[in-house]
Amino acid sequence: MNTIGKILTLTTFGESHGPAMGGILDGMPASVDIDLDALQRFVDRRRTGQTAGSSSRDEKDRVEVLSGIWQGKTLGTPIGFLVRNTDARSADYDDIARCYRPNHADFTWERKYGIRDPRGGGRASARETVARVVAGGIAMQALECLGIEVEARHLPVDETILKSVMAEGDTMGGIIECTVKGVPVGLGEPLFGKLHAQLAAAMMSIPSVHGFEYGDGFEMAAKRGSEVMDLFEQREDGIIGTVTNHSGGIQGGISNGEDIVMRMAFKPVPTLMREVPTVDCDGNPVTLQPRGRHDVCVVPRAVPIVEAMAALVILDNYLMKKTNVL
Amino acid sequence: MNTIGKILTLTTFGESHGPAMGGILDGMPASVDIDLDALQRFVDRRRTGQTAGSSSRDEKDRVEVLSGIWQGKTLGTPIGFLVRNTDARSADYDDIARCYRPNHADFTWERKYGIRDPRGGGRASARETVARVVAGGIAMQALECLGIEVEARHLPVDETILKSVMAEGDTMGGIIECTVKGVPVGLGEPLFGKLHAQLAAAMMSIPSVHGFEYGDGFEMAAKRGSEVMDLFEQREDGIIGTVTNHSGGIQGGISNGEDIVMRMAFKPVPTLMREVPTVDCDGNPVTLQPRGRHDVCVVPRAVPIVEAMAALVILDNYLMKKTNVL
Amino acid sequence: MNTIGKILTLTTFGESHGPAMGGILDGMPASVDIDLDALQRFVDRRRTGQTAGSSSRDEKDRVEVLSGIWQGKTLGTPIGFLVRNTDARSADYDDIARCYRPNHADFTWERKYGIRDPRGGGRASARETVARVVAGGIAMQALECLGIEVEARHLPVDETILKSVMAEGDTMGGIIECTVKGVPVGLGEPLFGKLHAQLAAAMMSIPSVHGFEYGDGFEMAAKRGSEVMDLFEQREDGIIGTVTNHSGGIQGGISNGEDIVMRMAFKPVPTLMREVPTVDCDGNPVTLQPRGRHDVCVVPRAVPIVEAMAALVILDNYLMKKTNVL
Amino acid sequence: MNTIGKILTLTTFGESHGPAMGGILDGMPASVDIDLDALQRFVDRRRTGQTAGSSSRDEKDRVEVLSGIWQGKTLGTPIGFLVRNTDARSADYDDIARCYRPNHADFTWERKYGIRDPRGGGRASARETVARVVAGGIAMQALECLGIEVEARHLPVDETILKSVMAEGDTMGGIIECTVKGVPVGLGEPLFGKLHAQLAAAMMSIPSVHGFEYGDGFEMAAKRGSEVMDLFEQREDGIIGTVTNHSGGIQGGISNGEDIVMRMAFKPVPTLMREVPTVDCDGNPVTLQPRGRHDVCVVPRAVPIVEAMAALVILDNYLMKKTNVL
Repeated sequence: MNTIGKILTLTTFGESHGPAMGGILDGMPASVDIDLDALQRFVDRRRTGQTAGSSSRDEKDRVEVLSGIWQGKTLGTPIGFLVRNTDARSADYDDIARCYRPNHADFTWERKYGIRDPRGGGRASARETVARVVAGGIAMQALECLGIEVEARHLPVDETILKSVMAEGDTMGGIIECTVKGVPVGLGEPLFGKLHAQLAAAMMSIPSVHGFEYGDGFEMAAKRGSEVMDLFEQREDGIIGTVTNHSGGIQGGISNGEDIVMRMAFKPVPTLMREVPTVDCDGNPVTLQPRGRHDVCVVPRAVPIVEAMAALVILDNYLMKKTNVL
Repeated sequence: MNTIGKILTLTTFGESHGPAMGGILDGMPASVDIDLDALQRFVDRRRTGQTAGSSSRDEKDRVEVLSGIWQGKTLGTPIGFLVRNTDARSADYDDIARCYRPNHADFTWERKYGIRDPRGGGRASARETVARVVAGGIAMQALECLGIEVEARHLPVDETILKSVMAEGDTMGGIIECTVKGVPVGLGEPLFGKLHAQLAAAMMSIPSVHGFEYGDGFEMAAKRGSEVMDLFEQREDGIIGTVTNHSGGIQGGISNGEDIVMRMAFKPVPTLMREVPTVDCDGNPVTLQPRGRHDVCVVPRAVPIVEAMAALVILDNYLMKKTNVL
Repeated sequence: MNTIGKILTLTTFGESHGPAMGGILDGMPASVDIDLDALQRFVDRRRTGQTAGSSSRDEKDRVEVLSGIWQGKTLGTPIGFLVRNTDARSADYDDIARCYRPNHADFTWERKYGIRDPRGGGRASARETVARVVAGGIAMQALECLGIEVEARHLPVDETILKSVMAEGDTMGGIIECTVKGVPVGLGEPLFGKLHAQLAAAMMSIPSVHGFEYGDGFEMAAKRGSEVMDLFEQREDGIIGTVTNHSGGIQGGISNGEDIVMRMAFKPVPTLMREVPTVDCDGNPVTLQPRGRHDVCVVPRAVPIVEAMAALVILDNYLMKKTNVL
Repeated sequence: MNTIGKILTLTTFGESHGPAMGGILDGMPASVDIDLDALQRFVDRRRTGQTAGSSSRDEKDRVEVLSGIWQGKTLGTPIGFLVRNTDARSADYDDIARCYRPNHADFTWERKYGIRDPRGGGRASARETVARVVAGGIAMQALECLGIEVEARHLPVDETILKSVMAEGDTMGGIIECTVKGVPVGLGEPLFGKLHAQLAAAMMSIPSVHGFEYGDGFEMAAKRGSEVMDLFEQREDGIIGTVTNHSGGIQGGISNGEDIVMRMAFKPVPTLMREVPTVDCDGNPVTLQPRGRHDVCVVPRAVPIVEAMAALVILDNYLMKKTNVL
């Protein structure tokens, strides 16, 4: 299933080395101002080549909006869009078509479907995230109109470690923290659709993410109840809020008006610039040679992806909340 | 939305102090043997009073199956079930009806719906999980037929710490690790429906869970690619597997045949056996008095809940996989 | 799948001769006044024994609401309910357990699931509709608050024909027309979720319905464009409406503010009070003997079922419409 | 919501005079042979200009498949596709942007969303059906592999009536009958997802359809039970079937192995080649002048659309059925 969301749904398509990646963002309310130049700039943030740890391909991800936005405003109709794949070099991948790269989806994909597109990982390539960023960028513009702000950042890594990892042909993981400010009280469905459960699903669907936590997260497990209690107070403006935010802006699965704070753990890039032993589809041992261009660390590129997924979930729940009262 | 699942869906209902909790498990294949006594025993594991850290209420959660199982076999029809609420003492909760208990869902629930059932937390009570355990227990029996085994455990806590926490009227969190053995290769939808994304959503929907990770999880973020690489090997029986399991049995969102391993962080119980300052719905300061019987640590009771949610997700994906080929 | 609806969902369970029928109505907004006595009276309209063509069983369908309604108001939580099966006489059905009754679901159900509950048709019995009527009755009360009125009627049949059909041990079909008044402009999703497509699906899901049409329906096919054109006019109150209503209150899949008018064709009851030849599950010819008590015509009993399904669809779309603008 | 289907889902996008129409067909099993030339020929059948009653625009609907099919086979990934809009002449529609054309979706669309794309009806144009035909054409190729055949036909109209209607600038409706042969026993979900309920929803979602019936349909309402009884027989090959097919191949919402037969009533084209009185968005009377090129009768063009929708529903249910047993 390639769809996420309930009212605001995103369905995506595209293989890494096929003609295009794209998607349909459905359920966007009508009459929302969309700045396509700003959208392109947001998508550009995902591009390679921006930071030391990223590879140097210039992907030129030009967004083509095919429907749903007219004269700078949403129509209430589905927003179809695509991004052409321009820099595909299938030949780079021919000899790995029969091999299972460790920590990639080659093996599982082939066993699941009985067939796989070996060109650059096909649909399993992280390139699929470009469609998420386009859709999420549109959602972010809608959230901005509502005074809701999504911001993620790569928790700092030591540049000297990064350089030594790179020099050794190795790779690194990392953590992204995402904060959403200005979320009204009441978003989230309190049973299976808890706001943090939806956020977890969205974040864990980003390639390489191995962990999710919100508020004090895993640290909560080692703390006492008295240590993590977010006491209520009435503020000067009459609003009831909490003094601390161990709960990360969500209680009982519903936003409480405080900042939503979550963290995602990314595994290291699975493609090393070293020889790696593996097996082919017949089980024979083979050695993968280092080649092509690959990121040492994908985490910086993943920042706008995290923001995009957060924006989609928050806006979906914002719309959903409208149905709480008759 | 009180439904989870795609093919195998569970929809639940019930307020803590209403007449009953219950649910409908839909999409169960026909002709699966169900042992209702074994199911009752599984549900009993969730009951209070089993461990030092649990409260002493005897909830007597007798499962009534109302449909979908006949003569010990599933019919392919929806399985309706309920568990009566027998030990409700609403009076215990009357004076907190106007107060917002910190780290509970009182405030968010009331602001979301404009109304709330204050009796024992209403729908926001952890009592709702009994319906999950019933449904998950049925799913587990189906998985057993398939040779798939789900097992969770509370990662050990120091008994002396637990006692001192209890003595101080304080509470504790904890971590549950869950392992699923015997999962065939190929379960999971590789984009938004990655197996671990579905598991994360299911686990994060359990009350008090603040974090989810699978495989090496958050540790992955600090490791190098070469350290976490699960190299492939062909085993003596010809099966291709991995030598290590840093990936936790899932690659690219699809099960790879290794054990699925995940961990969930639970926050400490929010109800202390101490005085707690808070505000009422008008924002006036009030003090909550310790009363009633509450768990010092819910984590031991949550073990079967975790197993239930894992079972539901795995069986749903097992069924979903059948549609991969024509 | 035993669920219908998008925001307002109904999931039902129950076999004809199992312990109970029931369901969960999820997504009802909070704080809606529900009169449970009025609900019981609505459900009673479905009971047997009310008209000449119905059988004489007194089903005593007492509705038990288990959650979601408290102190006369909805809580915003799922409404769980059940109706016990009190008049089950399984013995009546034992000898037909191996036979396929013509125009029943015996054959298809058994081939689909490899198993079937022969007691009174099991889940395939029209008794399942009691859960629809409970849920639809709740939805109708919500619609009344909104000034939306649902009313269905059995298009008249000649009483002398009915009597002669009954005398011959034969059965009859019929047509129900349903009108929904007071629907605001703008309900319905204009592509696959056209309001009339959703109504068609809901109505065609009622047992025995073989046709659906709205507005001029099948007559439209033989008419000219100029004959069925609903010209617009501005009325004295400034409202724009149509002079005629050939379109049945829906244009482009969206309600236009005029009365929604639809008709459903019901097939004759498949159980005759005559000997009927058929085959058993081995293909051997057998003769079914007339027995038990069966309706000559189910259409009068189906009137509240039609109203219930209409109410569920209209309320679901009313809620959905709230998400059209930011 | 612009998505239809459960396992096999189609999501579409596109406004009539925007850059392109398109869609994503998700859930197609892997390794299905797809002949793209045959697909293009199927899509061409929907084109204008083929019959006396159709308009003469040459839409040149060239299908671009962007993903999901590689080397002539499906990959199990979503199939993204588009069809460019090449013959758009927005100027033709400028003066009707403020008017509500009778029996069109102008009024309802504008009131629902507060905004509408007036260019050729925007998303409300029947041009949206091109995406359905592309997806349905792919589904039909899969069904052919399974020995399932979908065929629709326009029930004959008198050519002299058609000519006189055309001469008068008037339009006509019509009926399409669709037959599906080779459907295995057991497709369809017996409660809300009855096979005929799903077919009804799919067919009623086609622009201009005002009625749906299957088997003897509306005639059933006037018949006696004894007249429409499809008696079972065991055939020479041992298969159990029915002697007649009044039930249209579906009993209890589940296919019974006989031909599925259904009929859809189409209303006359709402755009006349005559002056038509209406109102503008301020309620002022205006007169629409005949202009542009419009079909006298859309029914011949709708034949492949009906086949496409039938194919999507049948294949979806074929896949769904795989989950009935463990």
